[in-house]
Amino acid sequence: MSHEQYQKCIEECIRCMMACNHCYNACLDEENIAMMTKCIRLDRQCADICAFAAHAMSTNSVYAREICSICADVCEECGTECKMHDVKHCQECAEACFRCAEACRAMAA
Amino acid sequence: MSHEQYQKCIEECIRCMMACNHCYNACLDEENIAMMTKCIRLDRQCADICAFAAHAMSTNSVYAREICSICADVCEECGTECKMHDVKHCQECAEACFRCAEACRAMAA
Amino acid sequence: MSHEQYQKCIEECIRCMMACNHCYNACLDEENIAMMTKCIRLDRQCADICAFAAHAMSTNSVYAREICSICADVCEECGTECKMHDVKHCQECAEACFRCAEACRAMAA
Amino acid sequence: MSHEQYQKCIEECIRCMMACNHCYNACLDEENIAMMTKCIRLDRQCADICAFAAHAMSTNSVYAREICSICADVCEECGTECKMHDVKHCQECAEACFRCAEACRAMAA
Repeated sequence: MSHEQYQKCIEECIRCMMACNHCYNACLDEENIAMMTKCIRLDRQCADICAFAAHAMSTNSVYAREICSICADVCEECGTECKMHDVKHCQECAEACFRCAEACRAMAA
Repeated sequence: MSHEQYQKCIEECIRCMMACNHCYNACLDEENIAMMTKCIRLDRQCADICAFAAHAMSTNSVYAREICSICADVCEECGTECKMHDVKHCQECAEACFRCAEACRAMAA
Repeated sequence: MSHEQYQKCIEECIRCMMACNHCYNACLDEENIAMMTKCIRLDRQCADICAFAAHAMSTNSVYAREICSICADVCEECGTECKMHDVKHCQECAEACFRCAEACRAMAA
Repeated sequence: MSHEQYQKCIEECIRCMMACNHCYNACLDEENIAMMTKCIRLDRQCADICAFAAHAMSTNSVYAREICSICADVCEECGTECKMHDVKHCQECAEACFRCAEACRAMAA
């Protein structure tokens, strides 16, 4: 697969990485931070696998599809957690996660 | 600085990462590969610092500006090398490098 | 510089990365998490630059020394924050940070 | 799983990352570089997944075991390629790859 074919999925991964890292920092600023620890943990983990998936696709690595498959699962898990928190950064992050999960799922297929 | 303010620079870093990794793989496919070794080395190094700069900005890290400053230098060096090779992937990579160098320079200022 | 010469500094970076990531997770488990947010943020940032410094040295990249110089500063900052918290994971993390700062400072010189 | 339990596997991943990156640079210095392109590509890909596996274990991420499973496969593939080249850096890299594959396989189980 060429880097052009990967381009849309890479873009979703980077968008999701940015949303997760923004949500991560905003969660650490929340007053009720004790409620946000699961979200903080998943935000970081999701941002990091999204970045690695973008790297793997961009380098056309032998493991690009398998990483996308894991990335889709983590995006799903992170989006589901974020969805439960009624603040803007969590809702926006959930949306980015679900879009990225879909793009990664299609790539992995 | 917010993640929105970083957004344009992150986009240039990701574009440059993709151009460098594409050029890297295309150089390894060239018949006259012996002429491309410096380009191959710099492509990887440049792609990797671009990815890390995007990460540093996205996480709003204390070292984001300093990484952008180093990234600008490496983009300059990689772009200068690529510019000397008269093949499409090198010329396109050089262009992406110079654009990214400019964005990172502005961010570091 | 060869990868053997980098080896000791890479080892300190990996040790510091591990200590920071352990401290990060343990801070997120603390009851009084509101007091730990600065520590959590710096732990992640420090772990990430340590990992990138190890990568830069291991690939013998043109920017290895400059990354080590930034890494030394971040280790200093993270160690200083951790040192103020009287729990085992923070004290151990501070120690790893100061050792890594010293190794990176020597490498950057 | 705690970071202590991950420690041995992280160490193998870092050792393999270093061997692969050393082999990568040495292959790019070889006179008969045209014979080494597959090795160069796999060295980079293997080094990068080893570094990410170390990161995933160190952060106790939900995807640590799955990454180790992919890492084991890539180490196997890289080691098999390196094994065929009768130069010291390739033979040493093959050995590090096979050891890391074993450690990652055990972790993923």
